Amino acid sequence: MTQPRSEEPAAGLLLEAFDPQLFRENSESALGRLEKHLSDLSIRGLELIRPAALTRAAQALMAPDSDQVNPFDEERLGAILDLYIRTGIPVHSPGYMGRQFSGVVPLSGVVDFVSSVVNQPSSFYEAAQLPNVAEQLMAGELNRFIGFDPDRFTMVTTSGGSLANLTALLAARNDKYPDYWAEGGSAVAGRPRPAIAVGADVHYSVSRAAGVLGIGEDQLVKLPLNDAKQICMEQAPHVLQAAESRKLKVFCLVASAGSTSLGAFDPLGELADLARRKDIWLHVDGAHGASLLVSDKQRAKLKGIEKVDSLTWDAHKMLFVPAPCTLLFYRNGEKGQGAFRQQASYVFDEEPDIYTDLDSGSKNFECTKRPMIMPLWTLWSVFGRALFAEKIDYLCDLTAQAHQVVEQEPDFDALHRPESNILCFRYRPSDLIRADETHRLQVAIRNRIKRQGNFFLSKVNVDGVAALRVVMMNHQITVEHFRMLLNEIRKVGEELLHG
Amino acid sequence: MTQPRSEEPAAGLLLEAFDPQLFRENSESALGRLEKHLSDLSIRGLELIRPAALTRAAQALMAPDSDQVNPFDEERLGAILDLYIRTGIPVHSPGYMGRQFSGVVPLSGVVDFVSSVVNQPSSFYEAAQLPNVAEQLMAGELNRFIGFDPDRFTMVTTSGGSLANLTALLAARNDKYPDYWAEGGSAVAGRPRPAIAVGADVHYSVSRAAGVLGIGEDQLVKLPLNDAKQICMEQAPHVLQAAESRKLKVFCLVASAGSTSLGAFDPLGELADLARRKDIWLHVDGAHGASLLVSDKQRAKLKGIEKVDSLTWDAHKMLFVPAPCTLLFYRNGEKGQGAFRQQASYVFDEEPDIYTDLDSGSKNFECTKRPMIMPLWTLWSVFGRALFAEKIDYLCDLTAQAHQVVEQEPDFDALHRPESNILCFRYRPSDLIRADETHRLQVAIRNRIKRQGNFFLSKVNVDGVAALRVVMMNHQITVEHFRMLLNEIRKVGEELLHG
Repeated sequence: MTQPRSEEPAAGLLLEAFDPQLFRENSESALGRLEKHLSDLSIRGLELIRPAALTRAAQALMAPDSDQVNPFDEERLGAILDLYIRTGIPVHSPGYMGRQFSGVVPLSGVVDFVSSVVNQPSSFYEAAQLPNVAEQLMAGELNRFIGFDPDRFTMVTTSGGSLANLTALLAARNDKYPDYWAEGGSAVAGRPRPAIAVGADVHYSVSRAAGVLGIGEDQLVKLPLNDAKQICMEQAPHVLQAAESRKLKVFCLVASAGSTSLGAFDPLGELADLARRKDIWLHVDGAHGASLLVSDKQRAKLKGIEKVDSLTWDAHKMLFVPAPCTLLFYRNGEKGQGAFRQQASYVFDEEPDIYTDLDSGSKNFECTKRPMIMPLWTLWSVFGRALFAEKIDYLCDLTAQAHQVVEQEPDFDALHRPESNILCFRYRPSDLIRADETHRLQVAIRNRIKRQGNFFLSKVNVDGVAALRVVMMNHQITVEHFRMLLNEIRKVGEELLHG
Repeated sequence: MTQPRSEEPAAGLLLEAFDPQLFRENSESALGRLEKHLSDLSIRGLELIRPAALTRAAQALMAPDSDQVNPFDEERLGAILDLYIRTGIPVHSPGYMGRQFSGVVPLSGVVDFVSSVVNQPSSFYEAAQLPNVAEQLMAGELNRFIGFDPDRFTMVTTSGGSLANLTALLAARNDKYPDYWAEGGSAVAGRPRPAIAVGADVHYSVSRAAGVLGIGEDQLVKLPLNDAKQICMEQAPHVLQAAESRKLKVFCLVASAGSTSLGAFDPLGELADLARRKDIWLHVDGAHGASLLVSDKQRAKLKGIEKVDSLTWDAHKMLFVPAPCTLLFYRNGEKGQGAFRQQASYVFDEEPDIYTDLDSGSKNFECTKRPMIMPLWTLWSVFGRALFAEKIDYLCDLTAQAHQVVEQEPDFDALHRPESNILCFRYRPSDLIRADETHRLQVAIRNRIKRQGNFFLSKVNVDGVAALRVVMMNHQITVEHFRMLLNEIRKVGEELLHG
């Protein structure tokens, strides 16, 4: 190992590793591979590799003696990149219908590349000037479709929907129980227990947040769903009433705008009215579905959104940028400042000024935060809203057609009329009647199809019985691809039943 | 807007935006700019722009009518990228000595670029096979320097040090109060209040976590520091005792390995012994300083680390990869599983198998998680440990020399002998005696130097009085650059005092 001296810049290995020319060569090498990857639109699912085998393959790519100086080895890097790209779910392939993450708009990946190299942590204006300005601009653009009072609302980016949901629930907790932050759980000793009402299908991050925040998972009040798997407005008031008589104080209600399981939209306007009557904070987990707001054709599914208190919106789902890029909106900006309350002299300035006004460190959980807004703001600035609206409309339309196809097949059951781009269904030929058999068959079908590697879909339990689930995130998919998937499901199902 | 039809793939704007050839052109354009940026080693600080002016500049770059179809405009993209790069802190310049984020090793940015495009969320093995395997391999590599039992420890990546600290405190809370997750704060009703002991200089994310978790910020027990700003082992037992008599039950103690303010290392071995005697979970916030473990020369500063319960380690600080990349280690892997407790049928499989064994979704907060290990694992695989050790040794050595320089200047006070790469000092000519004057002068110096734009440094309060703070993250800096900074400080200071 060369001995570094600080009278002159470090030499040797460091000079090589930080050499701009090597950076160019490595980038070209990655770029060639990525371009090829993006050009491959063949129909394929996942090549699932046994972890032990993949571990051996990965180990073989590591420099043999990590303690020695290892000069740069182009072949080693190439093999690592190849293995990395090859073993991921091919999100750009028409065979991928399985999850809520998507192939990103390629330009957003390029902007993220810039972020990775220039390294501007964005919780503070001085470290990331343009990202902080872009957040404000993007917030204004998107709020046009939400409809909060432009002078009062606020938006902050954070690292994923789970963190946004936690942050919103924290703002709600601190708003309704101002002493909780300093005193902890004993702030409510002797009073009804704080509780959170949720749709029965709410994302697991919400019950996780209840566990994290000291509310307790047992204090989740589950609101029943109607046939469309939306919160049932006939039953909701009674369930809230019953909770009160069990000495629970529901201070927050979490609705879904695009539930994870089925993409169902809760009736936001009616829930907002109910919440306001009962002085409850209404948070909407729109991680998946809030993006429908940017489409003139889909926006009505979030009718009433302007009346809610807070909204989680994952741009890394239906706005097709690299993960994570989550936007958390508050109708009342001041309350958004209440999630965290602190001072630290090395980051928060004593006297706020025009620069620190734009700091988000007091509104988001992270100290070091990726400038995640930049890929989104750049796409919006370059292509405009039309890019997103066009893709979202295509995907929702495609899913509606897929639903029609399922309806026409006697050996398939559609479980709902899709409201967005998620469709759940079961393969259930007439000779299959018992629920437990149906359940096991769907699980077995999903696993076998995953292993065969032509398609990638997911499964979800609906009313306790497994269902097959497609999430249409890729505009390269046509209804013809979906028919091919159904044929493969039927074939696999028949093999499993009779083979 | 073209009307999308789902009988054939979407056309028009989408075809253009997803065109691999356009992706190549955009990437080349970004790459050229980044290469130039990395090649510019001129001495400069930050060009701080008034937010209103920057907002106007950014707005002018947005497509004029977002609702119209905007065909791709190369010039617009170029101007956005130029503005983005120009307005960040030039972390590769020798003028940057201000914060704990650094210029990344360029190759790690390239790998992060691949992550941005291939989009493999890494909480689940099936979605990100290689990242999950790489996490295990990297955990093993780094644990060689920690020394936990290889068969028992576990490591999980998470989005930043604040989230890692929260997760570790949650594991501690759930370990010591198993009913807390389900019951919330009432699980401890009638018992001594749960409390967390911290070094008085602990990072703000820890007191934030106490507020978040329902422990309450008031239940932080602050342990006094010695002259070196480490937790004082003479006083710690008495302070813990005093807390008990105030009906507090300290269940967790948080030490720092590299405090944010001064880079001080708490005595981990002694703290571990104390914690074990009192059945307290010992968490170490090594966000900044854990990386010193990979250097043979620096490792001793974390003596005793093998006895602690959990450790936060930010690879995006002293391992020089894009943010965020935080590693959270647990000595006892089973307890690391206790931070979160849940099932969700759409992500967690009912029957664990060899594939789901590698899922991290039950151990980390995020559902969608960036495959943040890949840049680090690739650097380690290609260059080996020597790259990191060489850079860390250089930076610590440089900081020690900077300290000597300050000691030799009669108008400067060094506030400590640096243990790592952070040095705090004050400009205090002999005619400046009162503490409040000294405080105001440091703040004013820091602000003016920031605005002048030749150097970027930070400030921190030490014993209630502002100090100037340099963090040496850039191996392009020599002691000569530091002398230049001191000269500029002196000049600015004299202007402020007498000008």
